[in-house]
Amino acid sequence: MGGTATAPRPHVVIVGAGPAGLWAARRLGRQPVDITLVDRNNYHTFQPLLWQVASGTVGPEEIVTPIRSLVRRQPNTRFAWMEVQEVDLERRLVRGAGQEMAYDLLVLATGSATHFYGIPGAAEHCLPLKTVAEAVALRNQVLRCFERAVLEESAEVRRRLLTFAVVGGGPTGVEFAGGLAELVKSLRDRDFPGLRREEMRVVLLEALDGLLGGFPPQLGRFAARHLARMGIEVRLGAAVAEVTPQTVWLKDGALIEAETVAWVAGVQGDPAARAWGLPVGRGGRIPLLPSLQLPGHPEVYVAGDLAHQEQEGHPLPMVWAVAVQQGQMVARNIARQLAGQEPMAFRYRDRGSLAVLGRMGGVGRLWGRPVTGLVAWLAWAYVHLTTPPGWRNRLVVALDWVWDLGGRRANQSIVR
Amino acid sequence: MGGTATAPRPHVVIVGAGPAGLWAARRLGRQPVDITLVDRNNYHTFQPLLWQVASGTVGPEEIVTPIRSLVRRQPNTRFAWMEVQEVDLERRLVRGAGQEMAYDLLVLATGSATHFYGIPGAAEHCLPLKTVAEAVALRNQVLRCFERAVLEESAEVRRRLLTFAVVGGGPTGVEFAGGLAELVKSLRDRDFPGLRREEMRVVLLEALDGLLGGFPPQLGRFAARHLARMGIEVRLGAAVAEVTPQTVWLKDGALIEAETVAWVAGVQGDPAARAWGLPVGRGGRIPLLPSLQLPGHPEVYVAGDLAHQEQEGHPLPMVWAVAVQQGQMVARNIARQLAGQEPMAFRYRDRGSLAVLGRMGGVGRLWGRPVTGLVAWLAWAYVHLTTPPGWRNRLVVALDWVWDLGGRRANQSIVR
Repeated sequence: MGGTATAPRPHVVIVGAGPAGLWAARRLGRQPVDITLVDRNNYHTFQPLLWQVASGTVGPEEIVTPIRSLVRRQPNTRFAWMEVQEVDLERRLVRGAGQEMAYDLLVLATGSATHFYGIPGAAEHCLPLKTVAEAVALRNQVLRCFERAVLEESAEVRRRLLTFAVVGGGPTGVEFAGGLAELVKSLRDRDFPGLRREEMRVVLLEALDGLLGGFPPQLGRFAARHLARMGIEVRLGAAVAEVTPQTVWLKDGALIEAETVAWVAGVQGDPAARAWGLPVGRGGRIPLLPSLQLPGHPEVYVAGDLAHQEQEGHPLPMVWAVAVQQGQMVARNIARQLAGQEPMAFRYRDRGSLAVLGRMGGVGRLWGRPVTGLVAWLAWAYVHLTTPPGWRNRLVVALDWVWDLGGRRANQSIVR
Repeated sequence: MGGTATAPRPHVVIVGAGPAGLWAARRLGRQPVDITLVDRNNYHTFQPLLWQVASGTVGPEEIVTPIRSLVRRQPNTRFAWMEVQEVDLERRLVRGAGQEMAYDLLVLATGSATHFYGIPGAAEHCLPLKTVAEAVALRNQVLRCFERAVLEESAEVRRRLLTFAVVGGGPTGVEFAGGLAELVKSLRDRDFPGLRREEMRVVLLEALDGLLGGFPPQLGRFAARHLARMGIEVRLGAAVAEVTPQTVWLKDGALIEAETVAWVAGVQGDPAARAWGLPVGRGGRIPLLPSLQLPGHPEVYVAGDLAHQEQEGHPLPMVWAVAVQQGQMVARNIARQLAGQEPMAFRYRDRGSLAVLGRMGGVGRLWGRPVTGLVAWLAWAYVHLTTPPGWRNRLVVALDWVWDLGGRRANQSIVR
């Protein structure tokens, strides 16, 4: 725990080492506090590249970084590998398996979880894409379908094995569908010349009448045209009614036979928050004061996907940049609080958002202006190479992208 | 299946895409045969670096290569992802789940499996190191023990969590013990400054009275001294009597309390061979004609760890180089057989063998001469960077070694 102060220093417990928790911890590195950063994994995941793991472009270990290596240079910070099972706001305690931790200040940044909206069969038969393990499982499933199809005699079964449905036309769905279409193309051209092109389908299902909900409508239309040119069946207004093994039923009665159904249709605030008895609002997120403090508990902050805040009448999106800025603001407000100052209101500075559309393609906004094509892809590549922590990972990801631009996929081993 | 010949070409089925099977397939790439390469995994594993995965130096996906990418340029070769369940020598058939494959020539190269010698509790409580999944499980176990120890109040439990026993003082045991000692040192110095050095132990147990059985005795002694200087407790003549949860009992009555017991004490020929009704000899390996043919079945070849052959009165060791050379010889003998020539007798050309002793250390023989220290390490590094297939993997492994020489371990995330 280090430190030379003689008076006991306030103990800040940060639950969750995603972007919000990690950036909060880092900004508090020189403050006169003792920090315990808690996570159920011993690594930090760079979630914006999860879809690239699922589509075989980068390897799973390239987007994770051991948390200890990220806070190693902060003598005031220790890491505890623990799944929090209880938060006791009254006694100011956090409990995990056999562990109890008292806090003076608490930061809750446990993020979000896949939301299936109670659609029958979705949780049982779809593959989500929210953790590294899920990304690997999705990639392995696609590869397994090809391996099975090439040994399969029935054309009907082969078509089902080679139909890949992606539910959800938000940024993750759009990016993953593009990556998946390229994986399918690469497998078809390079590894499975015996399989027929007509038997392969990538279907992107979006319940609303446009892709990329949070983006300006013309960018959603651009993305739909671009994905269609890549050979993806983009189906708008296609709300899923039920998922059974190997079949997706739509509300309009249509059905899609697919061995693989990826679910990237939505997320909700970490359900653990509700289990801990915290006041949870819409989307499982916790409504907060403008300062990111929990109403009635000035010693408790919430940041990242779990935090519900509105700006210009809209809830802030559950994205990496919001989480990082909120984590930084929490650190700042804790420092102010300890110095006897008023905490400040959080305001998200939206520099833009980008979604990749396959190799060298993309769409998005930068400083309020729409960008498409190679410019969007380059901006995306720059941001996603410089944001994740750790030089080794950046180098290997860059290497994999170079491989990928050459039409190769580096990660096609079905390692369980 | 390609090919322009009008007459049906002989069908060669190769079971197992390890070094023996893969090199056999590659050498047959231009022969007038149709090849089906069968493996239960869709990837080839570079087993000589498994211990580096287990000690966190390289990542699991860096030592595997998709088999399809390795035979992509051979139009006469197809890959089938299948676990063989039956070999019918009379009807010349190989069967897997729902698949049946007729062969004209068969190459069995399914390798070896961990051998626990029937020692009570060994199979249940030890962690083997024979597959990528096992290497990751072993690495995760070590990391998990550190994470648990740092939260543990009882000194006794902490000591047990931080005691790592390695059973088996052959090359794999020696290399893994060295890698493990460095992982432990790196974790202690960099990631867990709160844990005490005295509570950490790496214990290498060898039943015989020297390390590195197959090497000249002075090299075994050199290795023992070197590992002892690295802080490893090398215990010779330490035969394991029984393993219970958290305890290893030795035949002399001594016991070692350890949460983690790695088992690298031995291998046997793939037990499936016996289940298929093949004539299995000592160590589960199949005795063969000098030409690597199965006696009475000139159309069946066996190569690699599964093949039992003696040279100068000793069985050939179950190592990568023997497997590669046997695979090449099988290909050559198949070509001779098809050309109406007599198959040739296999003879292993032993260029040497090397074992790494931690960072920049090593021991071994090269062209019959003993080498130690940096020279051995450099020779080892050269061989292990140039042998595994695939430029991407070589690059990333080299990158990880550079990281490692700088005292960092790249792969410390407990990804399940």
